[in-house]
Amino acid sequence: MDRKLSPEELERANEKARKKKAARDKMLATKTIEKGLLIVHTGKGKGKSTAAFGLAARAIGNDMKVGVVQFVKGKWETGERKVLEAFPDNIEIHTMGEGFTWETQDRERDIRAAEKAWEKSTAMIEACRSDTPEFDMIILDELNIVLRYDSLDLNKVVEFLKNKPEKLHVVVTGRNAKDELIDAADLVTEMTQIKHPFRSGVKAQVGIEF
Amino acid sequence: MDRKLSPEELERANEKARKKKAARDKMLATKTIEKGLLIVHTGKGKGKSTAAFGLAARAIGNDMKVGVVQFVKGKWETGERKVLEAFPDNIEIHTMGEGFTWETQDRERDIRAAEKAWEKSTAMIEACRSDTPEFDMIILDELNIVLRYDSLDLNKVVEFLKNKPEKLHVVVTGRNAKDELIDAADLVTEMTQIKHPFRSGVKAQVGIEF
Repeated sequence: MDRKLSPEELERANEKARKKKAARDKMLATKTIEKGLLIVHTGKGKGKSTAAFGLAARAIGNDMKVGVVQFVKGKWETGERKVLEAFPDNIEIHTMGEGFTWETQDRERDIRAAEKAWEKSTAMIEACRSDTPEFDMIILDELNIVLRYDSLDLNKVVEFLKNKPEKLHVVVTGRNAKDELIDAADLVTEMTQIKHPFRSGVKAQVGIEF
Repeated sequence: MDRKLSPEELERANEKARKKKAARDKMLATKTIEKGLLIVHTGKGKGKSTAAFGLAARAIGNDMKVGVVQFVKGKWETGERKVLEAFPDNIEIHTMGEGFTWETQDRERDIRAAEKAWEKSTAMIEACRSDTPEFDMIILDELNIVLRYDSLDLNKVVEFLKNKPEKLHVVVTGRNAKDELIDAADLVTEMTQIKHPFRSGVKAQVGIEF
Protein backbone atom coordinates (compact mmCIF):
# COMPACT_ATOMS: atom_id res chain seq x y z
CA MET A 1 0.00 0.00 0.00
CA ASP A 2 1.38 3.39 -0.94
CA ARG A 3 0.93 5.69 2.02
CA LYS A 4 2.82 8.73 0.83
CA LEU A 5 0.84 11.96 0.47
CA SER A 6 1.70 14.91 -1.77
CA PRO A 7 2.83 18.13 -0.06
CA GLU A 8 -0.58 19.70 -0.78
CA GLU A 9 -2.44 16.70 0.67
CA LEU A 10 -0.12 16.72 3.67
CA GLU A 11 -0.82 20.38 4.29
CA ARG A 12 -4.58 19.91 3.98
CA ALA A 13 -4.56 16.94 6.34
CA ASN A 14 -2.37 18.91 8.72
CA GLU A 15 -4.69 21.92 8.66
CA LYS A 16 -7.72 19.71 9.22
CA ALA A 17 -6.02 18.08 12.21
CA ARG A 18 -5.08 21.45 13.71
CA LYS A 19 -8.63 22.74 13.40
CA LYS A 20 -10.00 19.60 15.00
CA LYS A 21 -7.62 19.91 17.92
CA ALA A 22 -8.39 23.62 18.36
CA ALA A 23 -12.11 22.91 18.41
CA ARG A 24 -11.67 20.16 20.95
CA ASP A 25 -9.48 22.32 23.22
CA LYS A 26 -12.07 25.08 23.07
CA MET A 27 -14.84 22.68 23.92
CA LEU A 28 -12.93 21.22 26.88
CA ALA A 29 -12.16 24.73 28.18
CA THR A 30 -15.84 25.64 28.37
CA LYS A 31 -16.90 22.50 30.19
CA THR A 32 -16.61 23.51 33.80
CA ILE A 33 -19.49 21.81 35.53
CA GLU A 34 -18.45 18.89 37.70
CA LYS A 35 -21.24 16.59 38.58
CA GLY A 36 -21.87 12.98 39.25
CA LEU A 37 -23.38 11.42 36.18
CA LEU A 38 -26.41 9.21 35.75
CA ILE A 39 -25.13 6.69 33.22
CA VAL A 40 -27.22 4.09 31.43
CA HIS A 41 -25.91 1.08 29.51
CA THR A 42 -28.63 -0.49 27.39
CA GLY A 43 -29.11 -2.34 24.11
CA LYS A 44 -29.17 -5.95 23.00
CA GLY A 45 -25.44 -6.31 22.60
CA LYS A 46 -22.93 -7.75 25.02
CA GLY A 47 -20.90 -5.43 27.15
CA LYS A 48 -23.40 -3.54 29.29
CA SER A 49 -22.42 -5.05 32.61
CA THR A 50 -18.85 -5.57 31.45
CA ALA A 51 -18.44 -1.87 30.73
CA ALA A 52 -20.02 -1.04 34.08
CA PHE A 53 -17.59 -3.42 35.71
CA GLY A 54 -14.83 -1.62 33.80
CA LEU A 55 -16.02 1.73 35.15
CA ALA A 56 -16.04 0.28 38.67
CA ALA A 57 -12.53 -1.07 38.30
CA ARG A 58 -11.22 2.20 36.88
CA ALA A 59 -12.85 4.15 39.71
CA ILE A 60 -11.26 1.82 42.24
CA GLY A 61 -7.92 2.27 40.53
CA ASN A 62 -8.40 6.00 41.05
CA ASP A 63 -8.98 5.32 44.75
CA MET A 64 -12.70 5.94 44.63
CA LYS A 65 -15.27 3.94 46.58
CA VAL A 66 -17.71 1.86 44.58
CA GLY A 67 -20.95 0.19 45.59
CA VAL A 68 -22.69 -2.42 43.46
CA VAL A 69 -26.23 -3.77 43.72
CA GLN A 70 -26.92 -6.76 41.51
CA PHE A 71 -30.62 -6.91 40.77
CA VAL A 72 -30.25 -10.19 38.94
CA LYS A 73 -28.11 -12.74 40.68
CA GLY A 74 -25.22 -14.35 38.94
CA LYS A 75 -23.90 -11.52 36.85
CA TRP A 76 -20.94 -10.30 38.90
CA GLU A 77 -19.61 -13.55 40.19
CA THR A 78 -16.23 -15.20 40.61
CA GLY A 79 -14.04 -13.32 38.14
CA GLU A 80 -15.36 -9.82 38.75
CA ARG A 81 -15.58 -10.19 42.50
CA LYS A 82 -12.08 -11.58 42.75
CA VAL A 83 -10.59 -8.60 40.94
CA LEU A 84 -12.64 -5.95 42.69
CA GLU A 85 -12.22 -7.50 46.12
CA ALA A 86 -8.46 -7.24 45.81
CA PHE A 87 -9.28 -3.70 46.96
CA PRO A 88 -11.64 -4.50 49.84
CA ASP A 89 -11.74 -0.96 51.20
CA ASN A 90 -12.95 0.37 47.87
CA ILE A 91 -15.78 -1.99 46.99
CA GLU A 92 -19.08 -3.25 48.34
CA ILE A 93 -21.11 -5.70 46.30
CA HIS A 94 -24.65 -6.69 47.21
CA THR A 95 -26.34 -9.47 45.33
CA MET A 96 -30.04 -9.40 45.77
CA GLY A 97 -32.75 -11.66 44.59
CA GLU A 98 -32.77 -15.24 43.55
CA GLY A 99 -32.14 -14.45 39.95
CA PHE A 100 -34.93 -14.46 37.42
CA THR A 101 -37.61 -16.98 37.88
CA TRP A 102 -39.24 -18.37 34.78
CA GLU A 103 -42.29 -19.40 36.72
CA THR A 104 -44.68 -16.50 37.06
CA GLN A 105 -46.24 -18.01 40.14
CA ASP A 106 -43.12 -16.59 41.72
CA ARG A 107 -43.87 -13.11 40.42
CA GLU A 108 -44.70 -12.00 43.92
CA ARG A 109 -41.30 -13.23 44.98
CA ASP A 110 -39.63 -11.34 42.12
CA ILE A 111 -41.36 -8.14 43.16
CA ARG A 112 -40.33 -8.58 46.79
CA ALA A 113 -36.74 -9.26 45.77
CA ALA A 114 -36.72 -6.23 43.48
CA GLU A 115 -38.10 -3.99 46.20
CA LYS A 116 -35.54 -5.25 48.67
CA ALA A 117 -32.75 -4.56 46.20
CA TRP A 118 -34.14 -1.09 45.51
CA GLU A 119 -34.33 -0.36 49.26
CA LYS A 120 -30.67 -1.31 49.55
CA SER A 121 -29.85 0.89 46.56
CA THR A 122 -31.61 3.94 47.95
CA ALA A 123 -29.94 3.46 51.33
CA MET A 124 -26.51 3.32 49.69
CA ILE A 125 -27.28 6.39 47.57
CA GLU A 126 -28.64 8.35 50.53
CA ALA A 127 -25.41 7.57 52.41
CA CYS A 128 -23.68 9.74 49.80
CA ARG A 129 -25.48 12.99 50.61
CA SER A 130 -23.11 14.04 53.39
CA ASP A 131 -19.77 15.83 53.04
CA THR A 132 -18.10 12.47 53.55
CA PRO A 133 -20.01 10.32 51.08
CA GLU A 134 -19.98 6.58 51.55
CA PHE A 135 -19.44 5.97 47.80
CA ASP A 136 -18.22 7.87 44.74
CA MET A 137 -19.95 5.53 42.30
CA ILE A 138 -22.89 3.15 42.60
CA ILE A 139 -23.75 0.57 40.01
CA LEU A 140 -27.30 -0.75 39.76
CA ASP A 141 -26.65 -3.77 37.60
CA GLU A 142 -29.60 -5.12 35.58
CA LEU A 143 -32.00 -2.61 37.13
CA ASN A 144 -33.32 -2.15 33.59
CA ILE A 145 -34.52 -5.76 33.50
CA VAL A 146 -36.43 -5.29 36.74
CA LEU A 147 -38.05 -2.11 35.41
CA ARG A 148 -38.84 -3.84 32.13
CA TYR A 149 -40.78 -6.51 34.00
CA ASP A 150 -42.62 -3.81 35.98
CA SER A 151 -41.33 -5.22 39.24
CA LEU A 152 -40.72 -1.69 40.54
CA ASP A 153 -42.57 1.59 40.22
CA LEU A 154 -40.82 3.26 37.30
CA ASN A 155 -41.75 6.82 38.19
CA LYS A 156 -40.61 6.38 41.76
CA VAL A 157 -37.26 4.99 40.62
CA VAL A 158 -36.64 7.70 38.01
CA GLU A 159 -37.58 10.53 40.39
CA PHE A 160 -35.21 9.18 43.01
CA LEU A 161 -32.33 8.87 40.54
CA LYS A 162 -32.97 12.38 39.19
CA ASN A 163 -32.54 13.67 42.72
CA LYS A 164 -29.44 11.67 43.57
CA PRO A 165 -26.57 13.38 45.44
CA GLU A 166 -24.91 15.79 43.01
CA LYS A 167 -21.40 14.38 43.01
CA LEU A 168 -22.36 10.72 42.97
CA HIS A 169 -21.99 8.69 39.76
CA VAL A 170 -24.76 6.16 39.26
CA VAL A 171 -24.57 3.53 36.54
CA VAL A 172 -27.68 1.58 35.50
CA THR A 173 -27.36 -1.42 33.20
CA GLY A 174 -29.58 -3.88 31.36
CA ARG A 175 -31.52 -4.32 28.13
CA ASN A 176 -34.47 -2.20 27.14
CA ALA A 177 -33.92 0.80 29.35
CA LYS A 178 -37.20 2.66 29.82
CA ASP A 179 -37.57 5.94 27.91
CA GLU A 180 -38.15 7.84 31.14
CA LEU A 181 -34.80 6.64 32.47
CA ILE A 182 -32.99 7.45 29.24
CA ASP A 183 -34.55 10.89 29.40
CA ALA A 184 -33.26 11.46 32.92
CA ALA A 185 -29.75 10.15 32.20
CA ASP A 186 -26.64 12.22 31.40
CA LEU A 187 -24.88 9.55 29.37
CA VAL A 188 -26.55 6.68 27.59
CA THR A 189 -24.62 4.06 25.68
CA GLU A 190 -26.43 1.48 23.63
CA MET A 191 -24.56 -1.73 22.92
CA THR A 192 -25.70 -3.07 19.59
CA GLN A 193 -24.86 -6.58 18.56
CA ILE A 194 -23.65 -6.78 15.00
CA LYS A 195 -22.47 -10.37 15.20
CA HIS A 196 -22.71 -13.11 17.80
CA PRO A 197 -20.81 -16.38 18.01
CA PHE A 198 -23.94 -18.38 18.90
CA ARG A 199 -24.82 -18.06 15.26
CA SER A 200 -21.63 -19.87 14.37
CA GLY A 201 -22.16 -22.55 16.98
CA VAL A 202 -19.70 -21.49 19.63
CA LYS A 203 -20.23 -22.52 23.26
CA ALA A 204 -20.35 -20.03 26.11
CA GLN A 205 -16.95 -20.06 27.73
CA VAL A 206 -15.42 -19.18 31.04
CA GLY A 207 -13.90 -15.72 30.95
CA ILE A 208 -16.23 -14.51 28.20
CA GLU A 209 -19.68 -15.36 29.57
CA PHE A 210 -22.50 -15.44 27.06
CA MET B 1 -49.15 0.94 39.99
CA ASP B 2 -51.38 -2.15 39.91
CA ARG B 3 -49.17 -5.11 39.12
CA LYS B 4 -51.62 -7.95 39.63
CA LEU B 5 -52.37 -10.15 36.62
CA SER B 6 -55.50 -12.24 36.07
CA PRO B 7 -55.13 -16.03 36.28
CA GLU B 8 -55.37 -16.25 32.48
CA GLU B 9 -52.73 -13.58 31.99
CA LEU B 10 -50.55 -15.30 34.57
CA GLU B 11 -50.85 -18.60 32.76
CA ARG B 12 -50.07 -17.02 29.38
CA ALA B 13 -47.02 -15.22 30.78
CA ASN B 14 -45.92 -18.42 32.48
CA GLU B 15 -46.28 -20.47 29.30
CA LYS B 16 -44.34 -17.85 27.33
CA ALA B 17 -41.56 -17.93 29.91
CA ARG B 18 -41.38 -21.74 29.86
CA LYS B 19 -41.12 -21.82 26.06
CA LYS B 20 -38.39 -19.19 26.10
CA LYS B 21 -36.38 -21.14 28.65
CA ALA B 22 -36.82 -24.41 26.75
CA ALA B 23 -35.64 -22.78 23.54
CA ARG B 24 -32.60 -21.33 25.26
CA ASP B 25 -31.70 -24.64 26.92
CA LYS B 26 -31.94 -26.38 23.55
CA MET B 27 -29.75 -23.76 21.93
CA LEU B 28 -27.11 -24.01 24.65
CA ALA B 29 -27.09 -27.81 24.36
CA THR B 30 -26.22 -27.69 20.68
CA LYS B 31 -23.38 -25.22 21.06
CA THR B 32 -20.41 -27.47 21.57
CA ILE B 33 -17.58 -25.76 19.76
CA GLU B 34 -15.03 -24.15 22.06
CA LYS B 35 -12.85 -21.64 20.38
CA GLY B 36 -11.09 -18.44 21.17
CA LEU B 37 -13.11 -15.56 19.83
CA LEU B 38 -12.13 -12.60 17.74
CA ILE B 39 -14.10 -9.81 19.38
CA VAL B 40 -14.48 -6.27 18.09
CA HIS B 41 -15.75 -3.28 20.06
CA THR B 42 -16.58 -0.38 17.75
CA GLY B 43 -18.97 2.54 17.45
CA LYS B 44 -18.98 6.18 18.46
CA GLY B 45 -20.21 5.61 21.99
CA LYS B 46 -18.21 5.35 25.18
CA GLY B 47 -17.40 1.97 26.57
CA LYS B 48 -15.31 0.24 23.94
CA SER B 49 -12.06 0.18 25.87
CA THR B 50 -13.91 0.04 29.18
CA ALA B 51 -15.72 -3.13 28.16
CA ALA B 52 -12.44 -4.61 26.93
CA PHE B 53 -10.89 -3.71 30.25
CA GLY B 54 -13.88 -5.43 31.89
CA LEU B 55 -13.25 -8.55 29.84
CA ALA B 56 -9.58 -8.48 30.86
CA ALA B 57 -10.44 -8.11 34.53
CA ARG B 58 -13.00 -10.91 34.37
CA ALA B 59 -10.52 -13.18 32.63
CA ILE B 60 -7.93 -12.43 35.31
CA GLY B 61 -10.51 -13.15 37.98
CA ASN B 62 -10.93 -16.55 36.32
CA ASP B 63 -7.19 -17.06 36.60
CA MET B 64 -6.50 -16.54 32.90
CA LYS B 65 -3.48 -14.73 31.53
CA VAL B 66 -4.13 -11.48 29.67
CA GLY B 67 -1.90 -9.43 27.40
CA VAL B 68 -2.69 -5.87 26.36
CA VAL B 69 -1.18 -3.77 23.59
CA GLN B 70 -2.20 -0.13 23.65
CA PHE B 71 -1.91 1.27 20.16
CA VAL B 72 -2.77 4.76 21.36
CA LYS B 73 -0.99 5.85 24.47
CA GLY B 74 -2.92 7.10 27.44
CA LYS B 75 -5.96 4.90 27.36
CA TRP B 76 -5.16 2.29 29.99
CA GLU B 77 -3.39 4.39 32.57
CA THR B 78 -3.41 4.76 36.33
CA GLY B 79 -6.78 3.32 37.31
CA GLU B 80 -6.87 0.35 34.99
CA ARG B 81 -3.23 -0.56 35.48
CA LYS B 82 -3.52 -0.37 39.25
CA VAL B 83 -6.40 -2.82 39.32
CA LEU B 84 -5.00 -5.24 36.78
CA GLU B 85 -1.50 -5.14 38.22
CA ALA B 86 -2.83 -6.32 41.56
CA PHE B 87 -2.53 -9.66 39.76
CA PRO B 88 0.96 -9.28 38.31
CA ASP B 89 1.24 -12.90 37.18
CA ASN B 90 -1.89 -12.60 35.08
CA ILE B 91 -1.33 -9.39 33.16
CA GLU B 92 1.12 -7.81 30.74
CA ILE B 93 0.44 -4.34 29.39
CA HIS B 94 2.47 -2.81 26.59
CA THR B 95 1.95 0.82 25.71
CA MET B 96 3.29 1.64 22.30
CA GLY B 97 3.49 4.83 20.39
CA GLU B 98 3.57 8.40 21.45
CA GLY B 99 -0.15 8.76 21.23
CA PHE B 100 -1.78 10.37 18.26
CA THR B 101 0.04 13.23 16.73
CA TRP B 102 -2.04 16.01 15.23
CA GLU B 103 0.81 17.16 13.05
CA THR B 104 0.91 15.11 9.90
CA GLN B 105 4.59 15.80 9.47
CA ASP B 106 4.87 13.11 12.11
CA ARG B 107 2.88 10.65 10.02
CA GLU B 108 6.05 8.67 9.38
CA ARG B 109 6.50 8.42 13.13
CA ASP B 110 2.89 7.28 13.56
CA ILE B 111 3.41 4.54 11.01
CA ARG B 112 6.64 3.39 12.68
CA ALA B 113 4.95 3.36 16.09
CA ALA B 114 1.99 1.43 14.69
CA GLU B 115 4.23 -1.15 13.03
CA LYS B 116 6.21 -1.59 16.24
CA ALA B 117 3.00 -2.11 18.21
CA TRP B 118 1.77 -4.61 15.61
CA GLU B 119 5.07 -6.50 15.77
CA LYS B 120 4.67 -6.76 19.53
CA SER B 121 1.08 -7.92 19.08
CA THR B 122 1.98 -10.64 16.59
CA ALA B 123 4.81 -11.87 18.82
CA MET B 124 2.45 -12.13 21.80
CA ILE B 125 -0.17 -13.91 19.70
CA GLU B 126 2.36 -16.32 18.22
CA ALA B 127 3.50 -17.18 21.76
CA CYS B 128 0.03 -18.70 22.21
CA ARG B 129 0.33 -21.41 19.56
CA SER B 130 1.99 -23.96 21.80
CA ASP B 131 0.32 -26.36 24.23
CA THR B 132 1.30 -23.99 27.01
CA PRO B 133 0.10 -20.67 25.60
CA GLU B 134 1.58 -17.48 27.00
CA PHE B 135 -1.86 -15.81 27.13
CA ASP B 136 -5.54 -16.76 27.14
CA MET B 137 -6.69 -13.36 25.97
CA ILE B 138 -4.99 -10.52 24.13
CA ILE B 139 -6.45 -7.06 23.82
CA LEU B 140 -5.41 -4.81 20.95
CA ASP B 141 -6.72 -1.53 22.26
CA GLU B 142 -7.45 1.20 19.71
CA LEU B 143 -6.10 -0.92 16.85
CA ASN B 144 -9.17 0.26 14.93
CA ILE B 145 -7.94 3.85 15.05
CA VAL B 146 -4.59 2.85 13.60
CA LEU B 147 -6.29 0.91 10.80
CA ARG B 148 -8.65 3.80 10.19
CA TYR B 149 -5.67 6.10 9.58
CA ASP B 150 -4.14 3.51 7.24
CA SER B 151 -1.04 3.26 9.43
CA LEU B 152 -0.99 -0.52 8.98
CA ASP B 153 -1.72 -2.83 6.07
CA LEU B 154 -5.34 -3.80 6.68
CA ASN B 155 -5.27 -7.04 4.73
CA LYS B 156 -2.13 -8.20 6.47
CA VAL B 157 -3.66 -7.50 9.88
CA VAL B 158 -6.99 -9.19 9.11
CA GLU B 159 -5.35 -12.28 7.64
CA PHE B 160 -3.14 -12.64 10.69
CA LEU B 161 -6.08 -12.31 13.09
CA LYS B 162 -8.14 -14.79 11.07
CA ASN B 163 -5.36 -17.30 11.57
CA LYS B 164 -4.79 -16.67 15.26
CA PRO B 165 -4.29 -19.64 17.61
CA GLU B 166 -7.63 -21.39 17.93
CA LYS B 167 -8.12 -21.12 21.68
CA LEU B 168 -6.91 -17.56 22.05
CA HIS B 169 -9.40 -14.74 22.61
CA VAL B 170 -8.44 -11.53 20.84
CA VAL B 171 -10.28 -8.28 21.52
CA VAL B 172 -9.90 -5.31 19.16
CA THR B 173 -11.27 -1.91 20.13
CA GLY B 174 -11.72 1.54 18.64
CA ARG B 175 -14.08 3.59 16.50
CA ASN B 176 -14.83 2.86 12.89
CA ALA B 177 -13.76 -0.75 12.70
CA LYS B 178 -13.01 -1.68 9.09
CA ASP B 179 -15.60 -3.85 7.34
CA GLU B 180 -13.00 -6.50 6.62
CA LEU B 181 -12.28 -6.83 10.34
CA ILE B 182 -15.98 -6.93 11.24
CA ASP B 183 -16.37 -9.63 8.64
CA ALA B 184 -13.63 -11.73 10.17
CA ALA B 185 -14.82 -11.28 13.75
CA ASP B 186 -16.91 -13.71 15.80
CA LEU B 187 -18.51 -11.10 18.04
CA VAL B 188 -18.92 -7.45 17.22
CA THR B 189 -20.45 -4.98 19.62
CA GLU B 190 -21.18 -1.45 18.52
CA MET B 191 -21.41 1.15 21.27
CA THR B 192 -23.82 3.82 20.15
CA GLN B 193 -24.03 7.10 22.00
CA ILE B 194 -27.58 8.17 22.64
CA LYS B 195 -26.73 11.00 25.00
CA HIS B 196 -23.48 12.62 26.15
CA PRO B 197 -22.86 14.95 29.07
CA PHE B 198 -20.68 17.28 26.98
CA ARG B 199 -23.92 18.52 25.48
CA SER B 200 -25.09 19.56 28.93
CA GLY B 201 -21.77 21.19 29.77
CA VAL B 202 -20.24 18.64 32.07
CA LYS B 203 -16.46 18.44 32.50
CA ALA B 204 -14.49 15.27 31.97
CA GLN B 205 -13.85 13.79 35.38
CA VAL B 206 -11.43 11.44 37.00
CA GLY B 207 -12.82 7.95 37.21
CA ILE B 208 -15.12 8.47 34.21
CA GLU B 209 -12.77 9.72 31.50
CA PHE B 210 -14.37 11.36 28.51
